[in-house]
This record gives sequence, C-alpha cells and structure tokens, in this order.
Amino acid sequence: MAKSTRYVYFFGKGKADGRADMKGLLGGKGANLAEMNLLGIPVPAGFTLTTEVCTTYYDHGRKYPKELKGQVEKALAGVEKAMTKTFGNPQNPLLLSCRSGARASMPGMMETVLNIGLTARTIPGMIALTGNPRFVWDAYRRLIMMYSDVVMEKAAGREPAEGEGIRHQLEHLMDQMKAKAGAKADTDLTAEHLETLCGQFRAKVKAVLGKPFPDDAQEQLWGAVGAVFQSWNGKRAVSYRRIEGIPDEWGTAVNVQAMVFGNMGEGSATGVAFTRNPATGEDKFFGEWLTNAQGEDVVAGIRTPNPLNEQTRSEHDAGHPSLEQAMPKVYKQLYAIRDRLENHYRDMQDIEFTIERGRLWMLQTRTGKRTGTAAIRMAVEMLRKRRITKETAVTRVTPAQLDELLHRILDPKAEKDHKPLAKGLPAGPGGATGRIVFNAPDAVAWAERGEPVILCRKETNPEDVEGMRAASGILTALGGMTSHAALVARGWGKCCIVGCGALAIDARAKTMKVAGQTLQEGDWVSLNGTRGIVYAGQMPTVDPDPENPLLVEFLEACDKVRRLGVRANADTPADAATARAFGAKGIGLLRTEHMFYGEGADEPLFLLRKMILSGTTDERRAACDELFPYVKRDMKGTLAAMDGLPVTIRLLDPPLHEFIPQGEAKQKELAKALGITLDDVRKRAEALHESNPMMGHRGVRLGVTYPEVSEMQVRAILEAAAELTKEGKKAIPEIMIPVTCSVNELKDQAAIIARVKKEVLKKFGLKKLNFLVGTMIEIPRAALTAGCIAGVAEFFSFGTNDLTQMTFGFSRDDIGAFMPDYLDRGILKADPFQTLDQTAVGELVALGIERGRATRPKLKVGICGEHGGDPASIHFCHRVGMDYVSCSPYRVPIARLASAQATLAGSGTGSKKKAKAKKAAKKATKAAGKKPVKKARK
Amino acid sequence: MAKSTRYVYFFGKGKADGRADMKGLLGGKGANLAEMNLLGIPVPAGFTLTTEVCTTYYDHGRKYPKELKGQVEKALAGVEKAMTKTFGNPQNPLLLSCRSGARASMPGMMETVLNIGLTARTIPGMIALTGNPRFVWDAYRRLIMMYSDVVMEKAAGREPAEGEGIRHQLEHLMDQMKAKAGAKADTDLTAEHLETLCGQFRAKVKAVLGKPFPDDAQEQLWGAVGAVFQSWNGKRAVSYRRIEGIPDEWGTAVNVQAMVFGNMGEGSATGVAFTRNPATGEDKFFGEWLTNAQGEDVVAGIRTPNPLNEQTRSEHDAGHPSLEQAMPKVYKQLYAIRDRLENHYRDMQDIEFTIERGRLWMLQTRTGKRTGTAAIRMAVEMLRKRRITKETAVTRVTPAQLDELLHRILDPKAEKDHKPLAKGLPAGPGGATGRIVFNAPDAVAWAERGEPVILCRKETNPEDVEGMRAASGILTALGGMTSHAALVARGWGKCCIVGCGALAIDARAKTMKVAGQTLQEGDWVSLNGTRGIVYAGQMPTVDPDPENPLLVEFLEACDKVRRLGVRANADTPADAATARAFGAKGIGLLRTEHMFYGEGADEPLFLLRKMILSGTTDERRAACDELFPYVKRDMKGTLAAMDGLPVTIRLLDPPLHEFIPQGEAKQKELAKALGITLDDVRKRAEALHESNPMMGHRGVRLGVTYPEVSEMQVRAILEAAAELTKEGKKAIPEIMIPVTCSVNELKDQAAIIARVKKEVLKKFGLKKLNFLVGTMIEIPRAALTAGCIAGVAEFFSFGTNDLTQMTFGFSRDDIGAFMPDYLDRGILKADPFQTLDQTAVGELVALGIERGRATRPKLKVGICGEHGGDPASIHFCHRVGMDYVSCSPYRVPIARLASAQATLAGSGTGSKKKAKAKKAAKKATKAAGKKPVKKARK
Repeated sequence: MAKSTRYVYFFGKGKADGRADMKGLLGGKGANLAEMNLLGIPVPAGFTLTTEVCTTYYDHGRKYPKELKGQVEKALAGVEKAMTKTFGNPQNPLLLSCRSGARASMPGMMETVLNIGLTARTIPGMIALTGNPRFVWDAYRRLIMMYSDVVMEKAAGREPAEGEGIRHQLEHLMDQMKAKAGAKADTDLTAEHLETLCGQFRAKVKAVLGKPFPDDAQEQLWGAVGAVFQSWNGKRAVSYRRIEGIPDEWGTAVNVQAMVFGNMGEGSATGVAFTRNPATGEDKFFGEWLTNAQGEDVVAGIRTPNPLNEQTRSEHDAGHPSLEQAMPKVYKQLYAIRDRLENHYRDMQDIEFTIERGRLWMLQTRTGKRTGTAAIRMAVEMLRKRRITKETAVTRVTPAQLDELLHRILDPKAEKDHKPLAKGLPAGPGGATGRIVFNAPDAVAWAERGEPVILCRKETNPEDVEGMRAASGILTALGGMTSHAALVARGWGKCCIVGCGALAIDARAKTMKVAGQTLQEGDWVSLNGTRGIVYAGQMPTVDPDPENPLLVEFLEACDKVRRLGVRANADTPADAATARAFGAKGIGLLRTEHMFYGEGADEPLFLLRKMILSGTTDERRAACDELFPYVKRDMKGTLAAMDGLPVTIRLLDPPLHEFIPQGEAKQKELAKALGITLDDVRKRAEALHESNPMMGHRGVRLGVTYPEVSEMQVRAILEAAAELTKEGKKAIPEIMIPVTCSVNELKDQAAIIARVKKEVLKKFGLKKLNFLVGTMIEIPRAALTAGCIAGVAEFFSFGTNDLTQMTFGFSRDDIGAFMPDYLDRGILKADPFQTLDQTAVGELVALGIERGRATRPKLKVGICGEHGGDPASIHFCHRVGMDYVSCSPYRVPIARLASAQATLAGSGTGSKKKAKAKKAAKKATKAAGKKPVKKARK
Repeated sequence: MAKSTRYVYFFGKGKADGRADMKGLLGGKGANLAEMNLLGIPVPAGFTLTTEVCTTYYDHGRKYPKELKGQVEKALAGVEKAMTKTFGNPQNPLLLSCRSGARASMPGMMETVLNIGLTARTIPGMIALTGNPRFVWDAYRRLIMMYSDVVMEKAAGREPAEGEGIRHQLEHLMDQMKAKAGAKADTDLTAEHLETLCGQFRAKVKAVLGKPFPDDAQEQLWGAVGAVFQSWNGKRAVSYRRIEGIPDEWGTAVNVQAMVFGNMGEGSATGVAFTRNPATGEDKFFGEWLTNAQGEDVVAGIRTPNPLNEQTRSEHDAGHPSLEQAMPKVYKQLYAIRDRLENHYRDMQDIEFTIERGRLWMLQTRTGKRTGTAAIRMAVEMLRKRRITKETAVTRVTPAQLDELLHRILDPKAEKDHKPLAKGLPAGPGGATGRIVFNAPDAVAWAERGEPVILCRKETNPEDVEGMRAASGILTALGGMTSHAALVARGWGKCCIVGCGALAIDARAKTMKVAGQTLQEGDWVSLNGTRGIVYAGQMPTVDPDPENPLLVEFLEACDKVRRLGVRANADTPADAATARAFGAKGIGLLRTEHMFYGEGADEPLFLLRKMILSGTTDERRAACDELFPYVKRDMKGTLAAMDGLPVTIRLLDPPLHEFIPQGEAKQKELAKALGITLDDVRKRAEALHESNPMMGHRGVRLGVTYPEVSEMQVRAILEAAAELTKEGKKAIPEIMIPVTCSVNELKDQAAIIARVKKEVLKKFGLKKLNFLVGTMIEIPRAALTAGCIAGVAEFFSFGTNDLTQMTFGFSRDDIGAFMPDYLDRGILKADPFQTLDQTAVGELVALGIERGRATRPKLKVGICGEHGGDPASIHFCHRVGMDYVSCSPYRVPIARLASAQATLAGSGTGSKKKAKAKKAAKKATKAAGKKPVKKARK
C-alpha cells in the first residue's frame, strides 16, 4: 500500500478534500457534502472514509489499512476545530453521526448510528450546554437503541430469533415505561423517565449481549464505523445489489459528521425539500418541515408536516405554519441555497436541512426522484432556459418514465383503496375497466352496444383478434409476456394481463372463479396492465395527453440526438396512421396475416381459410385469386398512409393451422364453399396439425411449397405500389421473406418476385418500381450464413422473437412451466423474450450483420421483434450498427428516447455533433461485432 | 493461351504421352489406356483430347483452341503409323471410335460414335480387306444410326417428339426390312439386305434432318468429337452430375481410338472380365466372352455368354466353350495381362478385350465395382499378402458396402419375383417378414406365441416401444427418417419403414388399405428396410454372418488406423452387451427414459407416470423413491456390462407429456395409485400439454424445476457405481445434463450431484468415485456459450439432432410437409437430419469445441446424435477434433470404418503412425475451428 493513500476526506467550514465528481471514492452522500462545502453552503463539518477503506477491509480479512487511524484522528481534529467542540470532552462535547454512503443510492439498505459521543462523562456537559436534560437523555436513549442493535448485535453476527432482537427488547422496556408513566407518545416521557430508561437499557444490553454498552466516545466511533462497513455485506444490502445489478466490489464509504439537532426546542426545526415539484415538475420550491423534530420524524409521517412556503401550500396543511412565515430569515437563506444548488447541479435536488436554534445546516443534497410527467417537464423547461443541452435533457428521462405518459391508467387514488383480486404478468401497460365477457363474438357485440368489456380467455389465438380489438382490456389465465395475447395487445397499446394463474375460467358456463369468488359475465373488473393487477369492480381511469406539447418537444430533442431510425410494426392502414402520428419513420413490420379479418363468405379471413384448406394447386390458385383484391386494397391503404416512407411487408408467416376455424358451423360453411364434406375439412385441418408448429411448415417454407401464395401477395404489393405511383404518390414497399434458413429459399422466392415485377411493370406501363427484397433473420442458420443470404437480400430485419426461441430452444408459449424458477434462482437474469440476450442471441445478431455487410456493405439492417421496443435491447441495436428499430406504434416514443440515449451512451454525453455521434456509433458497432470473434479466437 | 499447351495425348504401340495418374486431364478411360500402353499391353492406338479442350470449348462460345486441329492431325498420323492403316484411305482404311471419358465414371451418360471413317470411298476397301461384305455393311449401318442420332440430331439441338427421333425412325426401317426378309434377329439379315438398308437410312436421314449423312472421314471425325463434348452438357449428364455431386467445371475428355473388331468371324471374339469375382471377392479370374461379336453384345445379354475359364464355370453356361478351351493361347496371354494389371493397380480390375482374327486387344481397364462381401474379402486378402497396406485396405470398402454385411435381408432372389406393394422411407435397414398387427400389445402377444409380426402404426410413440421391440419389423404411415419409430428401430438395428403415405391404417378396425387392397390383422407382409419397399406376402430372409472372420479382420485394420473413438448409444444392459460385441469402446448415450418399461402397478413405466403426474413436491419425491430401485438396478446392469469402459448417462430428457398414458383404463389405474380422480389425472395431463414440446419443459429444465428427479437419478447412478466398485468392478459413469442453454443450469445440477456424491461416498465408506459431469451441446446458445459451460462441464456431447432442429428451425416431426420440395428443388442438398449440415450446424459444433477447449484444454468431446453413425458426418467429427462418435450398436462397425477413412482423408493415406495422424487431425481441427472465425472477420 503506498504511504500516501488518502483514506479520509475532510469537509467543513467552506473547505473540502473531495468534490461532487468523486462519487466512486466518497459515495454519493460524501461527494455532495464536500461539494456543498466548496459552494460555501453551511454543512456540519465531518469526514468521509472512502470506499477503498471498505474494499481493503474486506480484502484483508476485515482489517483496516494501518494509515486509517492517524488520518481519522487528524480529520476529527479538523471537525472539532470547525465546530468548536471536542469529541469526548466533558464540558463541550462534540457528538457525531456515522452514515453509509454508496456510489449508487441504496436507500435504507445499510446502517446508521447517531449521537455518538454521549457517555457518562459527556452527558452532564451536554445538559449544561443545552439546558435541556430531556433532549439529552432522549438522545442517549436513541444512541443505546441504535448502537446495541447495529453494532453490538448485527455487526457482531448475532442472529436472534424473531422478536428477540435487542432493539425489540429495549422497545418493550420503553413500552413498559410509557405504560407506567401513563404516556401515550414517546414525547410524553419526561427527562426523569428517560434517564431511568437509559439505566434499564444499559442493564438489558449487558444481560442480553453479554457485554456492557461502551461508555467511551472513541470506542463508540470505531464500533459504528465498523458496523457500517459490515452492513455493506448484510443480507438486505446484498440482495438489493443483486436486484439492482450493483457490483459487490464497489463498497460503501462512511460519513462521520458533527451532529446538529432540530429537536433542541422551538427555535429548532428539520425538513426535506425538492428544488422543484417532483410530482408535476413545476418550477416551485417544494418541501415539508417540522419544528423541534428530528429528520426521521418528517419522513415517518407521525406528525403532519408543515408546508415550506405559501406558494405550495395545499388543502392538507391548511392552518399549518409555513417556514416562509415562521422563520422568514432562515427561509430566505434556504431559498438562496435552493437556487445555488439547482444552478450548480443543473438538476432538481432533493435536500435535507436542520435548523438548530435558528441556525440553518444542510445535511444532504442529491438528485431528486420524480414522476415521468415531472421528468419531462423539468427536462424541457431547463432545456428551454438553456440550463442544459439537448443531450443532457435526453438523459433526464428514463424510458419507464416516458411510458407513464403514454397510457390511460387506473386512477392511482382509486387504486389505493382497492384490494387486488389476482396478479398476472403485465403484458400490455395502462389501465382498463370493463365488464367481463368470455369470447370474442360477445366482446364485439357488447362493445357495439357501447359497453366497455374485458375479454377473459384461457389464452387467445388469431380467431380472437376481433374481440381483442373490441375489448378495453384483455385478461388471460395462461401465456407469458410474449404470448399471442401479449403481442397483439402491446401492438395495439392495449391494456392486457396474461398468465393470471389464479383464474379458473369456464368459457362455456361464462363464469370464472378467482380468490374464492365466482364472477359472471357482465361483472365489472379493472386491470392495471402496467403492474399486472386485477381488481374486482369498476374503477375510474385517467387519460394521458399524447398531444402534450412538453412531450412533443422532448421527443424532438431525442430525434436530434439519435442515430438509429425508428419504425413501427403496423398491420393495417389505421395502425400505420397511428404509427406515423407517434413519430415512426416507416413501417418495419407489416404482418400480412394480420390483415385478414371478416368471416363472412366473401370476406378476407374466410377466403384465407379457403386458400389454406385447398386440396390442390388449382383450388389454391383460385382461392388466391379471390383473396387478391382484398390484399391489394389493404396493401395500398397502408402504403398510402406511409406515403414517402418505407413499408416492410412480411409475406405470410405463421403455421397455417392457426387459421383453421374451430367451430362446426364455420367448418360447415367452409366445406360448402370448397364443395367438400365437413369430414374432408376436418381431415385437411388435421393434416395441417404439427408437433412443433413453431418449427414447422411456415414462413418461406409455405412460399416454396405453395409458390402461388407468394405470387398473389407479391402481385398485390407491386400492383398497389404501381397504382400509387400512377396517382403521384411515393410508395416504398420492402418485401420481406420470413423464416429463411438458406439463401436458396430466397433465390426461389426472388425469382417469383422478378417475374411478377416484369408483369406488373408491363401492365401499368411503368419503367421501374421502387422496392427492395429482403429477409427476416430469425433462424440461427440464417444469421450464420448471412454472408450468402446478403448476396440476394437487400435488407435484413432481425426477428429476435424467433431467433431467441431457436437460440435458447425455448418455445415462448411454453416457458411458463420453468421461467419463473429460472428467474427466481438467477439461472437467467431476465426473460430473454423481454430483453434481448446479448450473450448468444446478440452474438448471432452481430455476426449476421457483420457477415451480411461483408457481402453487401450498404445492407439495410433493422429489428422487428418485440425487442425493438425494449430500451436495453435498443442500446444493443445501436451498438451493433443497425439502421433502425421497429416496434409497436405505442412504443415508438420509447424507442425514440432509448435510441437517443443509446447514441449518447455510445459516444459520451459531451459530444454535440450528430455526425460525431454517428462516427462513434459506427466504431462501437465494429467493436461489438468483433467482440464475439475475439472471444472465439481465445 | 500459352503456345505450348498440349491438348492431345497420343497412345499406342507401348508408348503414351499420358499416365494413369493423369485422370483429371485425360479422364479415367484415357489415363488407363495410356497406362496400359506403358505397361506394354496391346491396346489399339489412339489419342485423348483433354478435359481442358472441353472447358476451353465451353468457355469460348463452343470454339476449340486453335492449336487443336494440328495436334489432332499429328496424333492421327501416329495412330495410322501404329496401326499401319490410313484414315479415309480407300485401300487400307483406318476406322476410329470416339468415346467420352470423364474424370469420374458417368456410365452411359455421354455419347459414343463407332466405325468412324466408313464412306463410299472406304467401304469397298474394307470389304476387300476383310472379305466380309456383311460385316462392313453392318458396321456402316451402325455408324449411320449412331451418328445421325448423336451428332446430327442431339448435338444439333433438335428435340423431336417422343418416338419421332431419327434413331427410332431408322429402327423402324430396319424392322420393316427384317419383316420383308423374314428375319428374326439382326444377324439374319444378309449383306445385301444391309446394303439396301444403308441406302434407305441415308435417304431417311436427309429427309428427316434436312442434310445428307456426311461421306467424308474427317467430317465424321470432327462431328463425333463435337458431339461428345456437347454431350457433357446434355440433360442426362447434367442431372447425373447434380445427383453425384460432380462439378460442371471438370469437363470430359474425348478418346479417339482405332477400331478393332470382335465380329470379323469365328477367329474374332470379345469379352469383359474381372480380375477377381466381383460378387464374392474370390481370387479367381472371372469373365464372359462371345465369338464373332461386338462388346455391346456381351453386355446386352441377347446371347448367353461363354465362361472365361473352367474354374469359374457355372451351371448356367454348361456346354458353352470357355476361352481357356477355345483359344488357349489367347487365354494364356489374357491371364498374364490380368496378373500384370492387378499387380500394377493393386486392386481388382474390370477389363474389356477384343480378339480380332486371333489377335488380342485390350480396350479398357478400370477399378471394378463389387459387392460389400467382395470388397471386404479382396481388401483383407490383399492385405494378408501385403499387396496393400492397412491404410489402403481401409479405403477399399465403402460404409454402404460394409452395411450390407450387417443386416438380415430379404432373399434377393425372392425379391426379384415380387411386385412392391408400397414405398416408404428406409428408416431401419435390413429385411423382415411377418404378420401384421396394429398395436403394441398385440405385437407383444403374437410374438410371445412365436409369430413373427410387423407392427403397423400411423406413427409410434414411447408407449409403443415394447411392441416395437417384439416386432420383426415396423411400418408406419407417417414420420420421417428421424421420427420416433425410425430412431428406435435404428437403435435396435431393426428393420423399419416409415412415412409410407400410401397406407390408410384403421387401427380400430385392425385393417389397412393400400394399393387398392385391404389387409387384415394376421396377413403377411415383407419389408425391405434398406430400400423402403413393402411387399405383400411372406418372403424368405437371409442372415448375415456377424462373426465373419474377414469382417472382424477388416474392422481390426480400421481400428489400427482411426483416431476417433467409437461408442454406442445403448439404453439397457442387453443393448450394452450388443454394443460391446460390435466393438464399441463405451456408451456415448444412455437415455434414462428408455429404461422405463412395464406398465404393471409396481413396474417402472407406471411408477414414472406416477412421478410425472405428481401434484406436489412431496408426491413427486415419494414416486421417485419408489422408482429409485429400478433405475439403480438398470444403471448397475449397464455399468457392469461395460465394465472398464465409460458409460454416458443422460438424465431425463423428453417432454413429460410423452409418457402420459392415453387410454382411460390406464389413466384410471394411475388415478387410483395417486389417490386422485380420473378427472384430476386428465387435468394434470392437460397441464403438461405444450405448443412446441421440443422447445418446452424438458431436459435440464425438468431438473431445475424438479430437483428431486435429478437427485433420484444421480443417486441411482452413483450408488450403482459404488456397489460395483465394492464388487471389484470398474464403473465409469459420465453424468450428462441434456438441453443445457446456460452454464447456470449446469451449476444448479452440479450442486445436486456434489451433494449426492458426498452422501454416497459416506454410505459406502468410499474415498472417491470415478465419474465425470458433462453436458449435451444441442441448443445453439450452448454452443455459443461453450466457453462458460466448459467451466463446469467436464465433457461435451453434441446432440446434433436437436442442434439441427434449432439451427434450422426445423421440427423433425414436421418436415414432411416441405422437405421433399426442398430436396427436389435443390434448396437443400441433403436432409440435415441424415447428414450433418456442415455450414451452419457444423460451424456451431466447431465453435463449441474451440471455445470449450479454450476454457478446458482436455475437454472430452463426442457426438451422440443420429449423425454419429453417418459416414460424411463422421468425417466432419474427425476434422473438428472430436474424441469419439457414438451411434446405434448396429452402426458401430460403420463408424469404425468411417473413422478410419476420416483419419486417412485428414492426414494423407501415406501416414502410417497413429500419433502423426492425431497431430494432423488436431491441426485440421484448428483449421476447421478457425474457419468460421476467419469468415466472420472478412
């Protein structure tokens, strides 16, 4: 260990060894205490033991570096000088607090000891100094409780049975004392009561823990410091770090600081405040305070706190004095500090202060937590005032915060008063309330009558889509986050809860049992799709404001920063319009099969079924001909809605049996239309059944075996584009072949496309049509052979849903049986269908891009799986050099934000030029692309 | 083009420009003709136009290199000199043949023209020379037929309608002439008839083809040469090359050679011979000949040919003169040539000869085709005589030839007389005959009565295994080469045909309709599982001789050469014993779930079901306890059978619902045993249903969610090993975790294994147990994260069946819908479940090995998928550096051979030291492993 290592950083009286940017070494709290000192803000003096002390402590068998003691002594002398008190001095004792301070906030996860330095020798001095024996004995009482619990029990590794911990036993003594004294609250105990109690406490500590409570100030200090370092590896702290992904190696700092007291009488007070309103974002100084109280009293909510000022006074605190009124001079000083801090940190601060006998002390400042609404308002308003750059503004809102603004939600006030009925997976965010129905036709019928409905199904399938569209919310008993119901719901921005295992649905009887009650058709339920909670009964909902100018302005800032393009997955002209309104610059995935609605005998879904059940190529060709005008109409509508922007159209993808009608009536109708028997229909349907349909006859495999089906679709697309061209519009279709595993499949389909193109050009007398031919990369083999595939494909779109299925060997419909165990036991860190697995799926994506671009340097690359709307996955897409992400229309704003944040993460927030960012992003891409290769070469 | 390029290689009179090892340039035929000349063997002089002429011809718009003409003239002059005749000379005309000669044999796929040089000017000279006008007119007649067909029609690109080709029209004229002359055979036509016919032929040629038959020798020659080159790109040749994988770029050579005639009267003759018997391999000179005949007469089989010698005379040619008798001098000369050729080529030769007026000419020598039996006998006998090395011996037998010796087959003689009833996929090789039954219990019952049965099912599932085992053969209507039935059948070396779509099985009625007839239970059918043919009726079968000492000796030679280890997939002690008898050096895959037979209430299969349907952990634990003794007993049996050899035991793998009984009776029984209702059993069974079971709750996912199931299996394995150790045996279990996708799954299971190990050691008072813990690599993510996985796994076994499924996104049970189209249209070159896809699946395998060994250099690596028994895949396994392959016991000999051939292919046949081969193989591995990486870096 180098002699010169500084383990202890002093701060006080306008001086400090540390700075705000030293959070890694000093922790967040310590760094900000130092910074406030440097800003000349009154802060009780103190010193910080660095996180290095913590790591050294654990690396060396729980021993401190030998330099520590001397450095602490020196810093303590500085504190004594600054506060003009002396630690352990009987006449003028300095009391200390000892708090943890990690690099990342871990609220309440580690320990604190206050009032250190109270001993038999110093108590009389304190009483003399304060003239308040009750205050002193109360402080001593608190010290014994905290210290015996934190230092003598927890840090010593004692593990008492439930309810037998020392704190519990001391609380019991205090309760007895209160009963004896006829006291209701702690504050009703007199100085005498408390002095007696302290004696009882000390006796109990010795009896239970086997050693006396230390009566030496130095011993107390070192005991507290050790306990705080120990608490870094306490159970709570360790499990919190696991969840939040905070590395064990970071360690915590320890802050030792002079005590100041807000509970020294009426001239004393304590409070917490935010430099702006954390709920609304309003630029108004907002906070709460209490006279003659300690900080924990404000937080605990035992007493109703007072408002900080008149401006932010609310109905709840009518009659309470504001600080502005009660202590105008101190308030003015505090307000000046508020401005000072916000100007300095250029962000809303969460501050704590104490007024000790009229003197203001700042105890903490940190960036304040806020709601989504507030985050956007603050970011935009600070940007407007040029207090921050657009790059900084973009980093000020998390995707989750933005998401809050995009959905209708259950009224949070109402939600507080309701007990949940059941919990499921939060598949489609937002809130919904409605009457339950148990099948799609009922959902449609009720909705047509103007009834809001919640469609309750065991699970959903493509036959249910009309009902799903009609419903206000969807609730299923089975399925995971990427089940059919979840995918469709999110695609429409619809509230949806899936996998709600507690439901026992009887669709025939139209009832469902849950939590001991039986709900009937028509009963009201309410869903919180953001959290996956089902409530019984009707609940009010709150609408978001999508036209919110702050939102629009914020997203425009994101657009200026980001490199990645953002498209939407949309299947109909209406979806396309929504997508465009949300800021999508194209459609990244139009699923042909989702266009098919309408079960009437001459409607698309019926005709599609006819095509699927065709027994011969001629029958199939005839059915295709009937279907053609509808497909063309819808293609044209969508291309027109996206005039001037690219539309990626995926040819028919899913296993055909998904489209077979289940009911006998529908099967009979189909039999009639096909001129065959019901039995034949059943046989043909049965023949389409597959053991593992996800890996069966689907995607391009259909196109290869039924070329007439591909031909029909391609003709519909190109004729639609040709007609629009004639009408002076700019249609840019991108024909996408799904489920490709070999370049030969593409060649096969490309030949059909080339032939149809020729015919369409001739028919419309055109010289050229502006379109691309590309493929999904969703099968591992496609990623591995991307070099060959790019010889034919003009663009790649990564279908990471299927790629994840194949790479993991996980059927997304079946993971429910083991995924909960996998996540609980940490076998997987996240559900790979929600957040892209960057290790393996990511390697295939990076490899696919690299090999594809090696063949075709200008290959256009995007993603159209569910991951396209997941922020962490978007960062990955940026890093590997994709051109765009595509997601559901309602996720487009999230994607715009996440893309911008990815650009900044890739190139440093300081960079202001887009070009620069792009360049850096490209470099990052290369690095990401090469990474797996390097690994492979080891 | 360099001036000095030699396009024409002369041979004749003991001299030759070429050699046997110039097959690439001269084609097989040309190279061997040159070689025979160099050996001093009498060969009609001639010359070879190289394959370069062919490629140049096609590369330059069907033009010859300009040097060609001069070189041909010079070579032709040499031929004239050698044969003392002159081409086109009226007095002493030289006649020529013109034949193709590709690098690889393409029998009958290209064109030939004989008797070139017969014109109005040379015919009289030929008649004078031979004194045989009939012979000359017959030769001219043949020339016109061949030439007009090959040169004037086909090469000219004329495409006449069916039956209207020129050859057909000329044959028609000849038939008319025969009718008119009252001639039965061609030979009944006189010289006069033939002369008239030639006139008619010439007139017809002119009338049909619009130009006269060329009457100029040079014109005939160049026409013939051109036609042969053209035929390289004829339809037949092109499609043959596609099938055989012969590159288009190779081109064909053209051999122009002086004609000699075996049909010049009684002193003339022609014959074909093999230096050894091609059917049995016996070291006896074997062949057939005819007097006064042309080569095609021997092959055509119109006349019964004569035996070559007395030694090989058979009942069929009794009374026919042998060449040995008829022309003893010539025979002696031929016999000497036979010895000369075999000594020179050190392999059995297939030769053609012609005797023209008592003079012997050799027309061809090439390596002779042979049966499997013959191949092995020749290889072993030549090896015994040290005529070839063991490395050469190993290359002399193909895996397919070896396979012939390993199965009971239908008697080929009987098969000739039977018409196939239906065709299916040849899933399990060999032959079987038996009476049909339609369910497994019937199969068991009939077999117990001693009736051979063929189990006919729509498809099979694990419930059928007992019936499958009892049956002589298995026949299914559905399923592919890797369906359940196919896998199980091959595993047992059982005859099996699957995917026989023509069958309409009604299992209830116990009938099946096929090809218009209805077969009843008990009717006889016979199966040729090697070719996938079903016959009606009973047919005799022929047994192979596995103890065949030649076979044993041959495989021992293979063992000395190969680097790869060979293990077997075996699930029971009986299978293990079979595997060992076939030469397996361990078990590479023991599928725990295949151990479970017996549906009685206290038998393993019943207990397994009880475990699967357990509703709680306690129930499951209790069921495991009941199951434990059976599992342990079987584990012990197998480990004992493999005493001293490793046994890789895969923990429970398949989706559980596969084991749920279907019938109500069995479900009731189960309900009773579980103390629940039938309805509950159904509900639990339904809960186990999955959308895509192949990617569902299976393999290690079961082990993670039901740790008690893993624990039971591990304890059974380790206790079995411990007991054997106590008994002085050497048990080497290798515990294999299936379906791993993350190292964390392994860690989870390894913890269970470690705990159980401790307990078992304690229970048996042992200090250590010799076993390994490893994993299947069968999920793409496992291959990609192999570096991490090898941190825990001590061995890898590539499960290439599943790896292929996931890498392609192909469900092997569902590929039937599109695989035929994919193969027909060349989208895939082979079914990837039969032959490993080296492009993508192979890249994952190579990558997995490389990354695994980077972490654990001594990682043991094998393969246990179906590919482990496929020769091409075995070559791949060798190249990527696997330690062993594992396949079904009946494929073990094939794997021993293929591994040896792979070693030779990898390191050059000259290498004799195993160590050297190993080193080379390691290098090859590295290369193979690095290849994808290099590709990725481009």
